[in-house]
Amino acid sequence: MSERWPPLRIAVAGAGICDDELMALARDVGHAVAEAGAILLCGGLGGVMEGAARGAADAGGVTIGFLPGSDPRHANQFIQIPLPTGLGEGRNVLVARTADALIAIGGEWGTLSEVAFARKVGVPVVLLRPHRTADLGLPVARTGDEAVRRAIELAAGGA
Amino acid sequence: MSERWPPLRIAVAGAGICDDELMALARDVGHAVAEAGAILLCGGLGGVMEGAARGAADAGGVTIGFLPGSDPRHANQFIQIPLPTGLGEGRNVLVARTADALIAIGGEWGTLSEVAFARKVGVPVVLLRPHRTADLGLPVARTGDEAVRRAIELAAGGA
Amino acid sequence: MSERWPPLRIAVAGAGICDDELMALARDVGHAVAEAGAILLCGGLGGVMEGAARGAADAGGVTIGFLPGSDPRHANQFIQIPLPTGLGEGRNVLVARTADALIAIGGEWGTLSEVAFARKVGVPVVLLRPHRTADLGLPVARTGDEAVRRAIELAAGGA
Amino acid sequence: MSERWPPLRIAVAGAGICDDELMALARDVGHAVAEAGAILLCGGLGGVMEGAARGAADAGGVTIGFLPGSDPRHANQFIQIPLPTGLGEGRNVLVARTADALIAIGGEWGTLSEVAFARKVGVPVVLLRPHRTADLGLPVARTGDEAVRRAIELAAGGA
Repeated sequence: MSERWPPLRIAVAGAGICDDELMALARDVGHAVAEAGAILLCGGLGGVMEGAARGAADAGGVTIGFLPGSDPRHANQFIQIPLPTGLGEGRNVLVARTADALIAIGGEWGTLSEVAFARKVGVPVVLLRPHRTADLGLPVARTGDEAVRRAIELAAGGA
Repeated sequence: MSERWPPLRIAVAGAGICDDELMALARDVGHAVAEAGAILLCGGLGGVMEGAARGAADAGGVTIGFLPGSDPRHANQFIQIPLPTGLGEGRNVLVARTADALIAIGGEWGTLSEVAFARKVGVPVVLLRPHRTADLGLPVARTGDEAVRRAIELAAGGA
Repeated sequence: MSERWPPLRIAVAGAGICDDELMALARDVGHAVAEAGAILLCGGLGGVMEGAARGAADAGGVTIGFLPGSDPRHANQFIQIPLPTGLGEGRNVLVARTADALIAIGGEWGTLSEVAFARKVGVPVVLLRPHRTADLGLPVARTGDEAVRRAIELAAGGA
Repeated sequence: MSERWPPLRIAVAGAGICDDELMALARDVGHAVAEAGAILLCGGLGGVMEGAARGAADAGGVTIGFLPGSDPRHANQFIQIPLPTGLGEGRNVLVARTADALIAIGGEWGTLSEVAFARKVGVPVVLLRPHRTADLGLPVARTGDEAVRRAIELAAGGA
């Protein structure tokens, strides 16, 4: 666990089904989150969420998944701490709100809801491969490393 | 109350502070919602929310406000049934989820979070004066009447 | 709608399956809530919730149901305004929090969660046929009329 | 982190202000949770929540706090992973729902709401020094070690 208190928490938002390119980016992001000593938060399911959790777990990081349902075993296998909220898609609010910064990879409706909610409550957002989120005036990174670096900078500035 | 059961519920999303043009549009929307025999749902505060509630109340409709705080008196005066949720901005999920269709007027981050969440859970959305929401591929109406007509059509199709 | 603003909102909590005695009490409570010009809030499903909604609707009142799921048609037929929250049992928080007072009839675990949550956030509670709730030091009424009368008194004092 | 997947998560509920006896019990419980390789969940504030987090942290465990507000620095200093939900007291639902078992120490209204909600959704509960919770027919432990042992047994049986 990081020596900073409270430890940095970086959320990753993205679709539950994704192509190989987004999956690879998600793994890069998760890896960089763990390398930075930050905790990874996500929605706990497949696709981008699984890629990010896998990357973080591979790098020895801590991964937390806010699940929509009430069965912890529905988390992907790289989630070390599943939190089965039972709130359905309402759990998106927790992904967006409880982090110091949010990285959105790709972006279908669920991802966009997390991005917009994060901005509403003052949580900084960085985009990777924006989709539906392209014209929002938010910072766009080109690599997973860059996304995490900028997210951490924005989190520091925001606190 | 409408003879249809369950009665149609149309949500209106928009910023808590807005200019005269958006306020007038919001009143038009609220008026048309009530004329159609539908119930108006919103976030219960000022700006677009107040305009829509005023329009609906003027036309004899029922208005419900999901408030972020726990004091019902923080609702605008045109809210007939304030619901003080105590969930903070998390109440946006309720505005977007509990309606048959959502009309977004203008659109800052909170509005966008409601639009995206509504689409995520399958609630149809119509936009008026889109802002941040312009490139989402969602139907855009030009007048309050048109917005309500299209919202009702989409709600019927979606059920 | 009541001329008081905001209008009094009385929530009724109770099990989704209940015997004839509790059902009759629930109808009495709903009837008295409507007679008092108050809005009835409940969880929108069967048993006590249905009895209370039926009593209120029979007396010309307004009935609102916070549903755990996302389909408004899962509400009992006496709910005039179904609010499909999609929050699962988490919707109990809304039943307990958004009312001016809560009347608990009988009381299994869900009911007890609403009673305790209401007290935690300062919403007054009146019990009818207490079960699991008997030793909590809360006021107990003997009839539906008495329960509503005391709930309204406590709501007035609490505001 | 435990080798079991998903790792056992034990929640501790209790008042934000408590006497020395409950504080000592809370530390015992937290210590035993960590010794068992389980993760400690709680509401993240003072009193019983702080005692439990301190006991778990002292024993090298992982501690998570679901905060009512949106500032992670409002967590007690023994919370390693603060989750600022912004849901107000509504966050009680998360404490009760996301764990494999819940241990309630003492018990004012907030604690009772968590106990009842946990039972509603099928999460097993063990009581220590029951208060308001004494007559609920729930298992009562006499020491922190016993409470954790029984909670783990019930969690295993419940899954």
